[in-house]
Amino acid sequence: MSQHQLATSHATSPGAPVLCHHDRGVATLTLSRPDSYNALSIEMLTALEEALTELNDDHALCALVIAAEGRAFCAGHDLHEMQEMGNEDDYRQLFAHCSRVMQRLQEFPVPVIARVQGVATAAGCQLVASCDMAVAAQSARFAVSGINVGLFCSTPAVALTRSISPKRAAEMLFTGDFIDADTALDWGLVNRIAEDAELDNELARLLDSLRSKSRIALTTGKALLSRQRTLPLGQAYAFAGEVMASNMMAEDVSEGIDAFINKRPPDWQHR
Amino acid sequence: MSQHQLATSHATSPGAPVLCHHDRGVATLTLSRPDSYNALSIEMLTALEEALTELNDDHALCALVIAAEGRAFCAGHDLHEMQEMGNEDDYRQLFAHCSRVMQRLQEFPVPVIARVQGVATAAGCQLVASCDMAVAAQSARFAVSGINVGLFCSTPAVALTRSISPKRAAEMLFTGDFIDADTALDWGLVNRIAEDAELDNELARLLDSLRSKSRIALTTGKALLSRQRTLPLGQAYAFAGEVMASNMMAEDVSEGIDAFINKRPPDWQHR
Amino acid sequence: MSQHQLATSHATSPGAPVLCHHDRGVATLTLSRPDSYNALSIEMLTALEEALTELNDDHALCALVIAAEGRAFCAGHDLHEMQEMGNEDDYRQLFAHCSRVMQRLQEFPVPVIARVQGVATAAGCQLVASCDMAVAAQSARFAVSGINVGLFCSTPAVALTRSISPKRAAEMLFTGDFIDADTALDWGLVNRIAEDAELDNELARLLDSLRSKSRIALTTGKALLSRQRTLPLGQAYAFAGEVMASNMMAEDVSEGIDAFINKRPPDWQHR
Repeated sequence: MSQHQLATSHATSPGAPVLCHHDRGVATLTLSRPDSYNALSIEMLTALEEALTELNDDHALCALVIAAEGRAFCAGHDLHEMQEMGNEDDYRQLFAHCSRVMQRLQEFPVPVIARVQGVATAAGCQLVASCDMAVAAQSARFAVSGINVGLFCSTPAVALTRSISPKRAAEMLFTGDFIDADTALDWGLVNRIAEDAELDNELARLLDSLRSKSRIALTTGKALLSRQRTLPLGQAYAFAGEVMASNMMAEDVSEGIDAFINKRPPDWQHR
Repeated sequence: MSQHQLATSHATSPGAPVLCHHDRGVATLTLSRPDSYNALSIEMLTALEEALTELNDDHALCALVIAAEGRAFCAGHDLHEMQEMGNEDDYRQLFAHCSRVMQRLQEFPVPVIARVQGVATAAGCQLVASCDMAVAAQSARFAVSGINVGLFCSTPAVALTRSISPKRAAEMLFTGDFIDADTALDWGLVNRIAEDAELDNELARLLDSLRSKSRIALTTGKALLSRQRTLPLGQAYAFAGEVMASNMMAEDVSEGIDAFINKRPPDWQHR
Repeated sequence: MSQHQLATSHATSPGAPVLCHHDRGVATLTLSRPDSYNALSIEMLTALEEALTELNDDHALCALVIAAEGRAFCAGHDLHEMQEMGNEDDYRQLFAHCSRVMQRLQEFPVPVIARVQGVATAAGCQLVASCDMAVAAQSARFAVSGINVGLFCSTPAVALTRSISPKRAAEMLFTGDFIDADTALDWGLVNRIAEDAELDNELARLLDSLRSKSRIALTTGKALLSRQRTLPLGQAYAFAGEVMASNMMAEDVSEGIDAFINKRPPDWQHR
């Protein structure tokens, strides 16, 4: 798709728990249960997983945004729904379902960016931690607050401890206290913050940067990042070297290098 | 124990190298050799290990504080004692002993908080790094200074490199230089700092937060955090999901969720 | 070598891609292709690898500096040279060669410090991330910009994700954007920054600190740091305890402890 083509976009059915919107190579999944603070109910998790499965094969994408409607980004699991369960197997399935969705974000073929306003708590904070990048409104606040109801945020801890430093993660997890957007930026939980009214402009700048990239470079990088992370250094380099040599063979790289040397904008095949 | 019960506390014998004090679900172990800057002598390590063993089975605890008497938090190993050894096997045993104590802090059933004033050097800095959280006085200073006597802080490096970022850990370890409390906060080596006169108030706020939690949530989280850390993402999630489903079955969680939904304070069974 | 001995230094042939300079226990390797922004051409990588091999056995060293001539530190791979290849095997060899050099910096027996001015991009940024410490001029700027030519910085990502936090690494890698020296300091990619005119003085302070150390402590620490990093905690402690007990047997430690206790400067055997 050309960068200068007009935005084409469509939305899924307005009543659905997750809305999907496309704009010039960027898909946005919007959690759309503002009355329940976009809690990750089974319905919501199922809708998210289905949307991720469908978008997985969309070869026109260069980025995915996870956004949310209303005053809160996401308040984590649906406590009312959990209260009605009561069987350990049901809980096991629920957390496995949620963990699968979080891992799908890591496995998603292109970068995933959280767009955060209001509160992001428990599995909602995990959702932010699980995205590759995050842009937050100045009003955003983050907590892993399960401990306040007697339930340690164990699965959120998996994502959080892989995103911020250990003592900070421990403090958030054991106290359940909120941190504000400035602190989240300082700790590396989010990449950029903006005044609430400027949030979409800040996000748009990041998305435009991703739109200007070759899709094969984005997908190569996304696949590499998580896979190399836990490898010993030598193995990580061996793997990354293979990946990079293969990336070199893409026509986009010849084009990109030629464009760079000749100081002209590249014309990617893979968008 | 009720939150409103008056504090009951007792202290171990005043001459002991480690004093133990209880206050409403919080045990405080105080290094009590201020004349030797609370150096981790064999006597001190043995006393610490015994105290940790004893407290391990105290099911009324919600937190453990590691504190120290006098102007220094802890100056690391006792150099005079080390000088008198001279046998590699003695040193091997000494470092194994010290490493065992540090790992006991990670394995301790509830969160461990360092209360730091003055200098925390070498194994004393490792002690801070090994706690789950740390609250420091503005006067606190941190160094891994073994290199100044020709002895690289190898075992402290294990804790430090798992607590702060690699280049910062390298600089501390290779230069032996001190960092001040503000820098320690900025680097995530400590969680909170306070004016010296306010240190205990700042610590009390953190402890009161932990006291208000369900003990089963605290112990669940403590056990989870270190165990999931080095697992690959998928395995970490599988483990954390099991842990969280099991945590859900605790009566405290039904109570906690009900209290949250009905906007009343929870009344925990597990304190 | 005595600390008070006059500096003795020599330089390799002026036309070489990498110049080597010795000054009182510190070797400096200077990338010397300023006209091509010190790109890591095959010639440059070969020269670096040879220099590292040669210096590996220099038992008088206490530190190695990686520096660069001209306005840029290092612009990464030589795009012109890469353009002329075109065979996947050639690329595979090139990236393996570069990865080998980066790992040699980790395996180098003493601490390695990057001295950074101007731009450090792609494999040039990886070079900074791969050093144990880095001192940067206020003018320095860092980017992993391969994505701008369609080539994700896969091998640089290996070093970068082991140096700074995940979301920050992801943003740099996916956007290709520059960060300035203040940001690099804030994120822990460099240790110290200085006004451009003060860069060498700042570096000299760090080097003088390393020069004052026992060489056996420096080499012990350097060998330990990378090896313990990916070990589980218990294994890391077992390994570090052995290393530290062995370090204790060095005459420098008896001397260092005695000097410390008697408040006199140590007189190291191992310089």
